[in-house]
Amino acid sequence: MTASTGSVSAAVMARARDMVKADERRARIAWSRVAEPASPAVQSAVSSHGYVGAWHRLIDGRLTAVRGPRERIGLVDVDRDIANTMRVGARIIIPGDAEWPAQIGRLPEPPHALWVRGEQRLDEVSARSVALVGSRASTGYGESVAQEIAADLTSRGWTVVSGAAYGIDAAAHRGALAVDGATIAVLPCGIDRCYPMAHRELVGAVARSGGIVSELPPGSVAMRQRFLSRNRLIAAFTAATIVVEAARRSGALNTAGHAERIGAPVGAVSGPVTSMASSGCHQWIREQRAVLVTDAVEVIDLAGDIGADAAGTDDLDRRLAVDHLSVAARAVHDALLVRRGTTVAAVAVTTALAPDEVLAELVSLELEGWAAREPDGTWRRLMRR
Amino acid sequence: MTASTGSVSAAVMARARDMVKADERRARIAWSRVAEPASPAVQSAVSSHGYVGAWHRLIDGRLTAVRGPRERIGLVDVDRDIANTMRVGARIIIPGDAEWPAQIGRLPEPPHALWVRGEQRLDEVSARSVALVGSRASTGYGESVAQEIAADLTSRGWTVVSGAAYGIDAAAHRGALAVDGATIAVLPCGIDRCYPMAHRELVGAVARSGGIVSELPPGSVAMRQRFLSRNRLIAAFTAATIVVEAARRSGALNTAGHAERIGAPVGAVSGPVTSMASSGCHQWIREQRAVLVTDAVEVIDLAGDIGADAAGTDDLDRRLAVDHLSVAARAVHDALLVRRGTTVAAVAVTTALAPDEVLAELVSLELEGWAAREPDGTWRRLMRR
Repeated sequence: MTASTGSVSAAVMARARDMVKADERRARIAWSRVAEPASPAVQSAVSSHGYVGAWHRLIDGRLTAVRGPRERIGLVDVDRDIANTMRVGARIIIPGDAEWPAQIGRLPEPPHALWVRGEQRLDEVSARSVALVGSRASTGYGESVAQEIAADLTSRGWTVVSGAAYGIDAAAHRGALAVDGATIAVLPCGIDRCYPMAHRELVGAVARSGGIVSELPPGSVAMRQRFLSRNRLIAAFTAATIVVEAARRSGALNTAGHAERIGAPVGAVSGPVTSMASSGCHQWIREQRAVLVTDAVEVIDLAGDIGADAAGTDDLDRRLAVDHLSVAARAVHDALLVRRGTTVAAVAVTTALAPDEVLAELVSLELEGWAAREPDGTWRRLMRR
Repeated sequence: MTASTGSVSAAVMARARDMVKADERRARIAWSRVAEPASPAVQSAVSSHGYVGAWHRLIDGRLTAVRGPRERIGLVDVDRDIANTMRVGARIIIPGDAEWPAQIGRLPEPPHALWVRGEQRLDEVSARSVALVGSRASTGYGESVAQEIAADLTSRGWTVVSGAAYGIDAAAHRGALAVDGATIAVLPCGIDRCYPMAHRELVGAVARSGGIVSELPPGSVAMRQRFLSRNRLIAAFTAATIVVEAARRSGALNTAGHAERIGAPVGAVSGPVTSMASSGCHQWIREQRAVLVTDAVEVIDLAGDIGADAAGTDDLDRRLAVDHLSVAARAVHDALLVRRGTTVAAVAVTTALAPDEVLAELVSLELEGWAAREPDGTWRRLMRR
């Protein structure tokens, strides 16, 4: 591999040209390797000339506005990137693929490609999603609110998107995982890496849940600028961005700023006015840049009100419908999980109802489309009527 | 004294007529006795006919829209009300008196008269004032925030108005008193009474500070309707109403509703989203009926921004000017009190500066109009440049 600086030899140029030829997917992989995310100059070049055309112009030295990437051409090895992607059980998706999440087209500089690891289709699992983000320097209060909102959101059929960082991000993922809900982590590094390292196990669990995503090719390490560009993806994936705890200069507000720029709603959880960890949230609420949210229902109101699709409104209707269930029926419904069956005995323990009462409620809920009996006799929660 | 219901004898009528004659002040005292506060029918009558004219029409049975008050004519004893007012060291003020606070004219049904106890002129002490109100069922968090904001507001030359109730009201008064700041209590009962009884000592201290006020004549007891009409006075006295803690159906939101109706700004202090005691605050912030405030400076911004007079703007300018002092000068300035002198030694303890440094800062502050030396050698804070 050649150095990443200095002039690039003719042989390297020829190899780079040959590696892409006229294949857009390979051109996008190559561009992902040479360009840092969210570069306006690169975006302008690929918009004007297409990915393949821009790639050959880059090699030929005809993209004078695009400087850094040409110095990195020697680093490109599309076949190796594809092999390393497969090796970790991931895949590469580009616009036009069925799985490509259309909503990220809201970004002025969308990713060239996405690396994805997880069993669900990214477009489907992210269609009804909310970003829950916040400070690494979180408090027990913030973490417990993040977990609770995440658990409730996913129980209501929404996916929680976050960044796998310490503090609020991790609490959001864990809250979703605790109720077997769907959650996605967008990483500031390659899909084969983990940042922070200590969250390897958490990131693995998130991959098995909703999936992990990155716009950086394998081997890429986390860097300051990549946290910021990663934040724009978190905002772009989701119907709303919720800041759970953030001091005045927290990176979580950077994510909220991206949401604001693409016209997505921003929510913020309030906290004690004496808590510096909530001061950024309070500032955004004061400035009416964020709506104060206190629970998952208010988050869904926000995501659904102004969200890109009708999913939110559906959910609001459904929430109102749930509100019309009897207290006992509601308690039983709340005790079920969406993605895994629960036994009658377990529901009885959770709800403090007698097993025969639980069974009677479950049968009613099943008739009304609120619950489903599994082949093994356990019960799952249904949200869609 | 005759019964308060049933028809009223001709002798009683003659006495009632004679008691008022053509004296507006006596007519207003009489109306205060017979009419519950904030009656639209009474307001309409006194607007049409003046207080004296309406009084004689009431006696003559010509105010058909005004029912209850006629049954109470037998209760009127203007001389006794005046004597009972004097006996507790209070006074009665009406519009046209120098002391009458003009801002309460914003109410659609202003008080007929005000009973006042305290050494300061009510118009002056209430000119730059903020209402700090909240739940009786407060938390330690809410009480400590109320105290801190009240102390800081009064240190900055603002008066804190509240209702002397348990919980947030009491904390607001105590916060002001703790720094020797000005605070006013508007009572839901006569000025000679105390509600709640347990706050007799607190109400006495408030009377010596900014004053206690009621629109009810001596002897009047607290009743549900009188709490609600009292709340409108708290809102009308002040440049802004701040709700520190309130559950969704708290009476503090009634005060905020009055502020809203007269076009005065409403602020609300956020709290943990898990605290029911903050749920009403959060709801008002979500609905953009209240601005989230976290400290006294934000309260002053709110009161000054949209306040009826220029006092708020003055203060905002002043605050910004204070912000330009050096860190040491600011600390010394903060350590002084507005209404009482502080010794150099005490300031040195508070600021952790050496006494000679404190003295140097005090002399500079004095030159710039930020502090005044008292005859006894102590120093007072000045806010007006």
